[in-house]
Amino acid sequence: MTVQDALKENSLEITEENLLQLKYDPGSVWGYIEVHIEQGPVLEWLGFPLGVVKGIAGQTRLKVTVKDSQRHARTVPMSMRQDPMAAATELIVLLESVCKNPKDFLSYDGHCNDISLESLSSSLVCAVGEISTWPSASNVIPGQVTFTVDLRAIDDMGREAVIYELSNQMYKICERRSVSCIIDCKHDANAVVCDSELSSQLKSVAYSALRKMAGDIQDETPTLMSGAGHDAMAMSHLTKVGMLFVRCRGGVSHSPAEHVLDEDVWAAGLAILAFLETQL
Amino acid sequence: MTVQDALKENSLEITEENLLQLKYDPGSVWGYIEVHIEQGPVLEWLGFPLGVVKGIAGQTRLKVTVKDSQRHARTVPMSMRQDPMAAATELIVLLESVCKNPKDFLSYDGHCNDISLESLSSSLVCAVGEISTWPSASNVIPGQVTFTVDLRAIDDMGREAVIYELSNQMYKICERRSVSCIIDCKHDANAVVCDSELSSQLKSVAYSALRKMAGDIQDETPTLMSGAGHDAMAMSHLTKVGMLFVRCRGGVSHSPAEHVLDEDVWAAGLAILAFLETQL
Repeated sequence: MTVQDALKENSLEITEENLLQLKYDPGSVWGYIEVHIEQGPVLEWLGFPLGVVKGIAGQTRLKVTVKDSQRHARTVPMSMRQDPMAAATELIVLLESVCKNPKDFLSYDGHCNDISLESLSSSLVCAVGEISTWPSASNVIPGQVTFTVDLRAIDDMGREAVIYELSNQMYKICERRSVSCIIDCKHDANAVVCDSELSSQLKSVAYSALRKMAGDIQDETPTLMSGAGHDAMAMSHLTKVGMLFVRCRGGVSHSPAEHVLDEDVWAAGLAILAFLETQL
Repeated sequence: MTVQDALKENSLEITEENLLQLKYDPGSVWGYIEVHIEQGPVLEWLGFPLGVVKGIAGQTRLKVTVKDSQRHARTVPMSMRQDPMAAATELIVLLESVCKNPKDFLSYDGHCNDISLESLSSSLVCAVGEISTWPSASNVIPGQVTFTVDLRAIDDMGREAVIYELSNQMYKICERRSVSCIIDCKHDANAVVCDSELSSQLKSVAYSALRKMAGDIQDETPTLMSGAGHDAMAMSHLTKVGMLFVRCRGGVSHSPAEHVLDEDVWAAGLAILAFLETQL
């Protein structure tokens, strides 16, 4: 059913005026709280059923294309090659090192101060999900290799600094290997920071809920970054947001293997109930 | 037209006996000489119109599969990742180093003596022509990455030693990264060595032909390995073989851009004419 059909069924004519009337007035909204499975393995690894989300990562998506003229794999000596596949793999190895240890790549040029470097190091994630070669034949050195980069961090300045430094070093590698390199930015979204007061309240109610269920608990509720986007990201344009993560098995999500324990869901329910009670 | 139809048209019934009668008797054949464009850039790089082929490389084709369970790129911290894509790129970077400097990887374990290492280093070529990820989405760490390896060398023992050492090191990298790795050998063909007497005669007639055309020539006719397979490879089962390569532009072949100079073809013709004259 389209939005248009839904509006018609409720006898609403689609005009800009009518749509604007449907929009929430920010003054009428107090805040937004979301509970979601983590879709990652951190809580399971920490042995903790609940976690508080400090923010939703900003994201950059790149498409990297490495090119050279096509030649037969079997006839060009190793020393004379300009192999886009070998170049692309060196770029991806570089990407992994940069994302594992951004400090080593950024500290010297003054892009970041120590505090943002610390937060960058703990939140930065990146991956290459797609790669393809042309003409894609096992006995031909590819004339072109294209791959995607998905890079996320809670710190927007840090993410931009990483993209800048990464692109520079990628161009240098391609220049040294005499292949051409095009880096396209396909998507760029800033991070959302959760409201600190909401987060601290969620932290405290989560702790109480877990104590109620498990008795004595030594560690405080963990605080984590969300790499995935959530509804809270859209709601943050309207009001302050807070999020609670629930542990999920193996960090697996969007898969038939997605799984969460009943008692973890119960703990989340207890926490939200306590949260609402504190607001009354 | 099928072989069957061709035989029928010539009133030949297809029986094993008839087919065996069509076969050349090795005793009736003196030898086989082939002229072919290089399909590689070496002669152009050397500035030489003709070259003598010392042999046709042996070849191994591998299919390498690196696996882990699929997770969202956006949610697994870098330190907790088992990323098949990052692992695969490390394997391909290793492949390139091994093929560029096989000495560094093989010398210590006594697989090769100095002479075969020398011939291995000058003839070894390898390339990754195909690579694919599953599920192939820009925001998902791939659960599986598959790529092909095409590895050729004039020295069969050396090629086997390289494959052995390469596989060992690939398995080690995957173990360190906690991903599984399957290396399938899809094809394995030994090298063909051209007849040394035919080769030395071709070398001398090629030199004479070039002198006739260009006057004084300082360097002797270059000797090179053929990375590509040729008809001579099949004919080597019947008789001794020799091959002459003709320079082609940019090493490009099997492409509309394939190009060879008229005078280079002329030089090859003169050389073969002189070769036939020496046999009379």
